[in-house]
Amino acid sequence: MKTAWTLLPSFLVALAAVRGRAATPPNPPPESTSRMVSPEVHPDGRVTFRFRAPAAKEVLLELEGAKSAPMKKDAQGVWTFTTEPLSPDFYGYLFSTAGSKSIDPVNPLLKPNLLETQSMVHVPGPTSLPWEIGPFPRGEVHRHFYRSSVVGDQRDFYVYTPPGYDARSYEQYPVLYLLHGYSDDASAWVSVGQANVIIDNLIAQRKVRPMVVVMPLGYGAPEMLAEGFGSFRDPNLRKRNFEKFQGALLGEVIPWVEHSYRVATDRGSRAIAGLSMGGAEALLTGLNHLDRFAWIGAFSAGGVNAEFETAFPGLDAKANANLRLLWIACGVDDSLIDINRKLMQWLTSEGVQHTPVETPGAHTWMLWRRQLASFAPRLFR
Amino acid sequence: MKTAWTLLPSFLVALAAVRGRAATPPNPPPESTSRMVSPEVHPDGRVTFRFRAPAAKEVLLELEGAKSAPMKKDAQGVWTFTTEPLSPDFYGYLFSTAGSKSIDPVNPLLKPNLLETQSMVHVPGPTSLPWEIGPFPRGEVHRHFYRSSVVGDQRDFYVYTPPGYDARSYEQYPVLYLLHGYSDDASAWVSVGQANVIIDNLIAQRKVRPMVVVMPLGYGAPEMLAEGFGSFRDPNLRKRNFEKFQGALLGEVIPWVEHSYRVATDRGSRAIAGLSMGGAEALLTGLNHLDRFAWIGAFSAGGVNAEFETAFPGLDAKANANLRLLWIACGVDDSLIDINRKLMQWLTSEGVQHTPVETPGAHTWMLWRRQLASFAPRLFR
Repeated sequence: MKTAWTLLPSFLVALAAVRGRAATPPNPPPESTSRMVSPEVHPDGRVTFRFRAPAAKEVLLELEGAKSAPMKKDAQGVWTFTTEPLSPDFYGYLFSTAGSKSIDPVNPLLKPNLLETQSMVHVPGPTSLPWEIGPFPRGEVHRHFYRSSVVGDQRDFYVYTPPGYDARSYEQYPVLYLLHGYSDDASAWVSVGQANVIIDNLIAQRKVRPMVVVMPLGYGAPEMLAEGFGSFRDPNLRKRNFEKFQGALLGEVIPWVEHSYRVATDRGSRAIAGLSMGGAEALLTGLNHLDRFAWIGAFSAGGVNAEFETAFPGLDAKANANLRLLWIACGVDDSLIDINRKLMQWLTSEGVQHTPVETPGAHTWMLWRRQLASFAPRLFR
Repeated sequence: MKTAWTLLPSFLVALAAVRGRAATPPNPPPESTSRMVSPEVHPDGRVTFRFRAPAAKEVLLELEGAKSAPMKKDAQGVWTFTTEPLSPDFYGYLFSTAGSKSIDPVNPLLKPNLLETQSMVHVPGPTSLPWEIGPFPRGEVHRHFYRSSVVGDQRDFYVYTPPGYDARSYEQYPVLYLLHGYSDDASAWVSVGQANVIIDNLIAQRKVRPMVVVMPLGYGAPEMLAEGFGSFRDPNLRKRNFEKFQGALLGEVIPWVEHSYRVATDRGSRAIAGLSMGGAEALLTGLNHLDRFAWIGAFSAGGVNAEFETAFPGLDAKANANLRLLWIACGVDDSLIDINRKLMQWLTSEGVQHTPVETPGAHTWMLWRRQLASFAPRLFR
């Protein structure tokens, strides 16, 4: 068959227009040459970033885990910076010019965030890394939408089902409830954390039992976001945010999941874990509902204050009979290491068994991806 | 229970750091005041856009469907523009400064696109509008990941299941295969097109039969994206792009869907439709596979050339026995209106029955959302 897919100039003009370009942009790039590429990941792990900003006087690259780096302008007005070789991982980044920050306009890979969207670059590594896609069957990610009566808004949650999951079978899967941090949205554990790939790989390697992973929205009071980080100064707002989050999880999300998915509903088949704000939510929800959760994980938890008796009333060594795992992890370069150590000291003083995990690293997704890969194989054994 | 959710300054510092802010930014906004809001949608439909860029000499607002508009700077270096009242809809936009474009850094609502991510603003309207969330049950959106043998890459596709869909029931749903345009990704019909909300509403209003909607990735040759719109100049690339797209759809996506979902597999229960490049793909795939598809829709199709005999070999009035609907729609302000009119003239000359639909509007998502809402109720009757 001769191709029917031939050039229609009007098609290009129309599409260019809808993309927000004027039909005759002031400096149209020649259509016959390649588009500018950014980021360009070199085989040795160096990454070249490029940003067209001819009028800027200075552009800084703000790369996750690195100091701001001044970029250099060429004769075409393109600012460039090439890193040293980076460890295989995903890195968020922005370009900063006097007073404003920009994503990389030519890179479609984003790091979504409710307070600051960033661009993201993947420096690929061997498939032995937990987040690299291997030659394995892949699970699905389901997005659910509903009106929350507890919070009074339209919201979503995500459900990962493992490869081979079949709603028509009689298998019962265990469930991990996995919580994001402050300023993330409900997609973050997938879009940034690669949680679905990590669990796919662990299942293929027979390191975890096939499980369902539920990723709810972590805000009970979404107005927590309107004021940014300053919102944490309002104790009533913080209290409402946690309590309504917990109400929506226990009263709306979990019943929905247990009605719609082939999941076991005994406490031994339910885990709860989270990062940062979500780590605190996992501890506060899990340790106060040991009738529902036997497995609890906190990665870089932030938001539990030092009045632990108030946060966890009545928690003592009797909990050990119900707790199959209490995993408390934090990076030693994270300023939250102090409060996490205090929490572990208090748990020890109360006779509550737990697994302390201190790793290199700060308050970053690099650490949380690795935490999920270390934590998940301990579940449901 | 007394709140355990109290302020931890270290939490804020750590979170601020991970978000790419320096711990001591040069001009920290006072944490106690509100964050800058953009966009601000007023009750009358006017929208105020704000962009902090103290060093910029000029900032233009590029709003979908409007001319570039110069913004005005205030004493704090914030550029502002307030529109006239806008019709309820979703609008993409960018801020343009000399030589570079930026999304709105404080607006988390994005219009994802593989060549140019934009920000998006929702001007809400009455729930009678097809894309406004009504007081109705909502369907789910499932994301599938797989390695395509046809294309040789990792890719995804999305599946909408209607409210009440139950994989354990014996109901058989009809399926609409719904294709995006050039530069979109597979999420576009949901993230920009609101297709899931539109179908939810039509089902609740009993205007359509409950259906499954499958949204595959529309590129058979993803290198079509590397060169931008200039790629359409290479006839071999265009041909490979379409043929491998069609191969992956017919050989991979449809078999997967028909294995995994409760869908009817007769041709009368299969529809294919798309916008722009996806409109051409729907016509080329559907009209050349009437044994598989009885319902075909093209919205602002671009990419079928005027040698229709070559594109649709053997198509003539005999097709009418199999074609339940051939819907060909285009906006009269779209430069593609000419080729679509020529196509309809040719179909008429061949005796092929079709439904011509000319509406106000150009090559925009405003038109495609309305097209889906008009087209879907005609299906599977």
